[in-house]
Amino acid sequence: MSALFWPGDHRAGSLMSDSALLRAMVAVEQAWLESLVENRLADPGATGSLADLVSDSDLGELATRAEHAGNPVLALVDLLRARARTPATVMWLHRGLTSQDVLDTALVLCARDALASVCADVDRQVAAVLELAVRFRDAPMVARTLTQHAVPYTFGLKAALWLQGVLDAAEDLDRIAAALPSQLGGAAGTMAAAVELAASAGAIDPVGSALAVAASTSARLGLVARTPWHTTRAPITRLGDALCGAIDAWGRIANDVLLLARPEIAELAEPGEAGRGASSTMPQKTNPVLSVLIRRAALTAPTLAAQLHLTAAEAVDERPDGAWHAEWLPLHLLGRQAVIAAAQTTELLTGLRVEPERMRATLTAARPGIDAERTSLAQLRAPDPDRATDAYVGAAGVVVDAICERARLRIASRG
Amino acid sequence: MSALFWPGDHRAGSLMSDSALLRAMVAVEQAWLESLVENRLADPGATGSLADLVSDSDLGELATRAEHAGNPVLALVDLLRARARTPATVMWLHRGLTSQDVLDTALVLCARDALASVCADVDRQVAAVLELAVRFRDAPMVARTLTQHAVPYTFGLKAALWLQGVLDAAEDLDRIAAALPSQLGGAAGTMAAAVELAASAGAIDPVGSALAVAASTSARLGLVARTPWHTTRAPITRLGDALCGAIDAWGRIANDVLLLARPEIAELAEPGEAGRGASSTMPQKTNPVLSVLIRRAALTAPTLAAQLHLTAAEAVDERPDGAWHAEWLPLHLLGRQAVIAAAQTTELLTGLRVEPERMRATLTAARPGIDAERTSLAQLRAPDPDRATDAYVGAAGVVVDAICERARLRIASRG
Amino acid sequence: MSALFWPGDHRAGSLMSDSALLRAMVAVEQAWLESLVENRLADPGATGSLADLVSDSDLGELATRAEHAGNPVLALVDLLRARARTPATVMWLHRGLTSQDVLDTALVLCARDALASVCADVDRQVAAVLELAVRFRDAPMVARTLTQHAVPYTFGLKAALWLQGVLDAAEDLDRIAAALPSQLGGAAGTMAAAVELAASAGAIDPVGSALAVAASTSARLGLVARTPWHTTRAPITRLGDALCGAIDAWGRIANDVLLLARPEIAELAEPGEAGRGASSTMPQKTNPVLSVLIRRAALTAPTLAAQLHLTAAEAVDERPDGAWHAEWLPLHLLGRQAVIAAAQTTELLTGLRVEPERMRATLTAARPGIDAERTSLAQLRAPDPDRATDAYVGAAGVVVDAICERARLRIASRG
Amino acid sequence: MSALFWPGDHRAGSLMSDSALLRAMVAVEQAWLESLVENRLADPGATGSLADLVSDSDLGELATRAEHAGNPVLALVDLLRARARTPATVMWLHRGLTSQDVLDTALVLCARDALASVCADVDRQVAAVLELAVRFRDAPMVARTLTQHAVPYTFGLKAALWLQGVLDAAEDLDRIAAALPSQLGGAAGTMAAAVELAASAGAIDPVGSALAVAASTSARLGLVARTPWHTTRAPITRLGDALCGAIDAWGRIANDVLLLARPEIAELAEPGEAGRGASSTMPQKTNPVLSVLIRRAALTAPTLAAQLHLTAAEAVDERPDGAWHAEWLPLHLLGRQAVIAAAQTTELLTGLRVEPERMRATLTAARPGIDAERTSLAQLRAPDPDRATDAYVGAAGVVVDAICERARLRIASRG
Repeated sequence: MSALFWPGDHRAGSLMSDSALLRAMVAVEQAWLESLVENRLADPGATGSLADLVSDSDLGELATRAEHAGNPVLALVDLLRARARTPATVMWLHRGLTSQDVLDTALVLCARDALASVCADVDRQVAAVLELAVRFRDAPMVARTLTQHAVPYTFGLKAALWLQGVLDAAEDLDRIAAALPSQLGGAAGTMAAAVELAASAGAIDPVGSALAVAASTSARLGLVARTPWHTTRAPITRLGDALCGAIDAWGRIANDVLLLARPEIAELAEPGEAGRGASSTMPQKTNPVLSVLIRRAALTAPTLAAQLHLTAAEAVDERPDGAWHAEWLPLHLLGRQAVIAAAQTTELLTGLRVEPERMRATLTAARPGIDAERTSLAQLRAPDPDRATDAYVGAAGVVVDAICERARLRIASRG
Repeated sequence: MSALFWPGDHRAGSLMSDSALLRAMVAVEQAWLESLVENRLADPGATGSLADLVSDSDLGELATRAEHAGNPVLALVDLLRARARTPATVMWLHRGLTSQDVLDTALVLCARDALASVCADVDRQVAAVLELAVRFRDAPMVARTLTQHAVPYTFGLKAALWLQGVLDAAEDLDRIAAALPSQLGGAAGTMAAAVELAASAGAIDPVGSALAVAASTSARLGLVARTPWHTTRAPITRLGDALCGAIDAWGRIANDVLLLARPEIAELAEPGEAGRGASSTMPQKTNPVLSVLIRRAALTAPTLAAQLHLTAAEAVDERPDGAWHAEWLPLHLLGRQAVIAAAQTTELLTGLRVEPERMRATLTAARPGIDAERTSLAQLRAPDPDRATDAYVGAAGVVVDAICERARLRIASRG
Repeated sequence: MSALFWPGDHRAGSLMSDSALLRAMVAVEQAWLESLVENRLADPGATGSLADLVSDSDLGELATRAEHAGNPVLALVDLLRARARTPATVMWLHRGLTSQDVLDTALVLCARDALASVCADVDRQVAAVLELAVRFRDAPMVARTLTQHAVPYTFGLKAALWLQGVLDAAEDLDRIAAALPSQLGGAAGTMAAAVELAASAGAIDPVGSALAVAASTSARLGLVARTPWHTTRAPITRLGDALCGAIDAWGRIANDVLLLARPEIAELAEPGEAGRGASSTMPQKTNPVLSVLIRRAALTAPTLAAQLHLTAAEAVDERPDGAWHAEWLPLHLLGRQAVIAAAQTTELLTGLRVEPERMRATLTAARPGIDAERTSLAQLRAPDPDRATDAYVGAAGVVVDAICERARLRIASRG
Repeated sequence: MSALFWPGDHRAGSLMSDSALLRAMVAVEQAWLESLVENRLADPGATGSLADLVSDSDLGELATRAEHAGNPVLALVDLLRARARTPATVMWLHRGLTSQDVLDTALVLCARDALASVCADVDRQVAAVLELAVRFRDAPMVARTLTQHAVPYTFGLKAALWLQGVLDAAEDLDRIAAALPSQLGGAAGTMAAAVELAASAGAIDPVGSALAVAASTSARLGLVARTPWHTTRAPITRLGDALCGAIDAWGRIANDVLLLARPEIAELAEPGEAGRGASSTMPQKTNPVLSVLIRRAALTAPTLAAQLHLTAAEAVDERPDGAWHAEWLPLHLLGRQAVIAAAQTTELLTGLRVEPERMRATLTAARPGIDAERTSLAQLRAPDPDRATDAYVGAAGVVVDAICERARLRIASRG
């Protein structure tokens, strides 16, 4: 992303960047080449580090040449061959792979790093919101529905439901992260070239040898081997949906902060880092910038995830004529935006300032209207005279406890 | 949906319709009322069948009055109370529930029926494509990548990859279907009214009694009880993503049929039901109507799923001011469109006409160009002279077998 | 749309409904048939009213049969022929037309009626907001930016900017409404059948005769004749963009009302119609239902308009294999949703309750912070001592006047 | 955009880039400062070139600091003040402006440059397709509808309809380009600071002076002055819609090329630039890369335009809390993608290879089926025996001529 157009972009560092994609593509070629050699499909002299043959200074040329082939892999292979240290590397590099193998697998590697960053932030968020939910478990405030004061409530329950949203998102992220697949099928998913190489090398079971190369490559890269998915894109749409689901959860929190930090309400405030939220002309203002930027991502992510579904649905043939190519940018954007929003949400939640006195004051001022439901119930059957009159928050505490327990289970499982 | 605007709409019958939603809302009120009585929060005389108090003839009035409250629940409760057979029913109906409880849970019930229909079709699709993959396991054809002839291929592998797409979708649908939650939290998710009712009825543990009502209601409805999710909408976005993922898989198949049924290619044809695909002016034409209509859904679904993510991300307060209301229609549309596209895809796949001779002829005509990859490999190392020269499909058969095995496991598990 | 899933649906009546589409398709067939006769391509006995041959009771059958051909036209033509009063009508009906001609033109007719409804509401809105802007031209309030109090402001300027949004939308709607085209090209846009009919009828200039039939048909329908646009869909995307643009403008207003009607702010309130905004359990509440439902549309419309762009972009051949079919439902939805939101916005704006005292009180309470910009300016150069100290609203009044003048020009031009 | 994720990105050069945005923001500050001086609101010594105070080497710092304020303007102003050559510049820089003024106007300036690039390509496309339509006006081919052979057709008409799509897009682009507005309203659109500065400088009509500064600034920048549009975003949504409409038109062309360049059809071929479309493993292949990449943009653009509508619809207050911030990236993406796709489409169309013999052969082979409509007409009335039997293309030539005439009018008007 262009940084001025998406403030906070620097938080994602090189995750899901051109640079990361280049390194990942090289890593795929390297792992495959080593596996070819290991399984005797290629000559032993073919191996040798590829990583130092290219650098970010090649990105400009690769990007320009990428248009010629429609993707950057051919240009990269040409470059690696031109700079390879041995003729064997030149000869055996990329043999048996197709562009889509390299690019799909490299994108998965990039996504893995982005996911790791997101999940680490999710862990921090879970810890931070758990603390809020516990600390303010019974802190009274008003519930607002359809913008109006509804019934008494607790900030503990509000925080617990933020937590529930984050935990739901985490569940999906974890499942995706545990099953990231490699893509290794050759020109059309048949692995024909690899099988042929195995046969010409005298393999007794050429198909088995080719599959062994794929398995070994996947293992080297730490990915799950699966049957080719060049045109069945659930691995991509699931990833997009999970990232979007996480951004949904963060957006939902940011919306509450944006509202409750309004001066007329003032029940929450963003962390007060010096200089953050300053205005170019109004010295008195402190804008809730973190929440604004998180909300921005929440408005953007759904249609990026939709682009991934569309490209999946538009697949045709054994490699699609544009639908595949339209996948890379939304993946790049969604990946980086998730990383950035994750970090901003962590910062928001760990430094959030809660004003329980103000919350209580709002509740008090909302009386007696806010007690109307309770009053109407009393007309059905006389209330228990021993019950405290100021609490009408039902099972709120128990719900908080249940969600906190779920959070603790996750924390324990993440070790 | 309006039927003329979405041909095939009748296939969904009353699934996810106004009528189904009405029945589902009544079922929720009924289950809750019975559970109130069962747990002694309401008087025993309050139960009695609600289902026959309203009918489709009430839909017009409910729809009109729904605008007044922003949702149809209040109007329904008024109607049920006006028609209830006993004063106890009037008194206890809906006590402890909020509109969102009733509508969310009713939508989940409607979604369950739609999912059941979709999953039954998925079962049929798996069986049909499995048969295609087995029958044509080794039938040669050309692989096409970026529209051009690439390498030799088999129709078995093409079918197997269609199958893989359907199985991936089924995996997500099954997971959703197994964990459909009820929504029972009261005005703001605290269950305050239910707890109060329990207390006034002399319950020793009012909170426990209220939770028991919710548990009992969920059990009656066959749903999973969970902590309130009024503003954490993963249950909805996951459902939307899974339905969209299924439509992606079907669209991907339809695209192949649309292409391969073109007269210049003619390797596949739609089932030849009399009259289907006729033109209003060109008597000779038979249009691939099933695939056209499936593809239509594939172009539409991604942004419907995105609408659900957006509404999730835009949640605020304890009930959102529009984001909740914007959820219902995309859910209605996505649910019905999935049911319809599922049925159309089943029909397409069970009656698909495959022309293996034509496929082979295309492959033959594509020589020698299509053998270029193989030829280039032969320059690296002399090929095994004993290898058959007409097959260059690598591990295609083994990939087919692996995917078929996965299909058989699912069939077995679905009993 | 299914009414329970989109409260307020009844406001659109039969606009853009199945029923309206049926009538519009018949009107197209009728106009074409009469023009064939008028231009001597068909026998004089072929005319006669078609409108009473079908009715809403046929919708079920038409909808079911629509799936067979992929669209409802063939089934309609069959029905009309079966019921036609003369053999000449049977013989000449639909000759020279293709399904897409009939459906596209009928959709445009339906859209025209929807646009007329929307534009009438826009007129009412312009009048209502103009009055607000004039009445409250100088009424002080705080400006809020990024949720925080920024500088002094006027409600007149806020209203004027609402007005500006509506006027911008009106500009686009008017342009679209003035150039709604018919679609009359025959099977592939060549008008070959009509030309052939003219030639066989002895026309000296068969092409000229065929074009005259198209021109006459367009004139009868009150549409603009243009070269066929079966696969160039700007007429559809522009319509979608304009409708979405209007919904954007209304959503923006609704967002302000939702915020300013919050109890902590209370500077605006929705019109207080009895019973509107009631809660199913909280008797004290009055929810801002109109704004909630308008906002709902604003969250939904953008991706519906995007569906229309996608189907335009996905056109191929002389009639697309799904992209055309995917157009009808979003058009139906966007049309109805615009009509409904237009009416709701009119009601909101004509009955909006403004609390200038409360606005002033907020501004007073925001001092001195809200004067910080002014104070900082005073450090640059001493302020004019004669200037009133309580106003710091710059050119607000002049901006209001300019926008009001634009509104008056439109009102005058609309007669 | 990250170049490896969107091959062809280099074609857009610095258009709509971080670098262009930086220069544009500086240009806005410069024009405003000069206008302040010109109108005697600021001291004469305040002017002086700002452009050389910053460079691309500042982008990293600006991007990082942009997150603090939520947008990059404050950081830029700080930098300019730190480096300004005179105290007067430090004192008067940015006075009267707000961040949104600078960023909105700068984005419009960037968009203007992107639009100019797109429109120049549109001019080239119009010339190229006009030539195709004229040259192949009567070249026979088959029309395809719903994937099947329909009736005889001409390549001239196909090209003319491509042209019609481009001309429709051009119409919208031209209208947008002719009315690009500046944004100059100060903190909340009231111009209060500018008016105050004018008053303190002794202006007789401070409001008039402030408006004169805005008018002068707009004139310096070549933009249209209009009342503030901080929260009424039609200028942005219209721009997005027009760019998307152009991409729709190009995508529609690319789809035809992708289909007709398939080996089984072979009626069109992409320009044969050496090396373009090469495969990483299949030496015989030439992939239609330009069309693939154009189609990619067509799949992506609709939801980017939808993001702009959503952000418009989500505006609230006098500056929105995220909706404004979510606008910049889709604008960046849509702008660059349009520039790139425009250039690719120009290259595609100017070098397109047409195979009229192959087209004719397909038509011949499609007989007699493709004559069925004509045959069915002959049953109605005996055809004119003098009519040529091989042409059944009706008014195709006349339609081509009409669209070509429209193209020539545009060419003439563009000088």
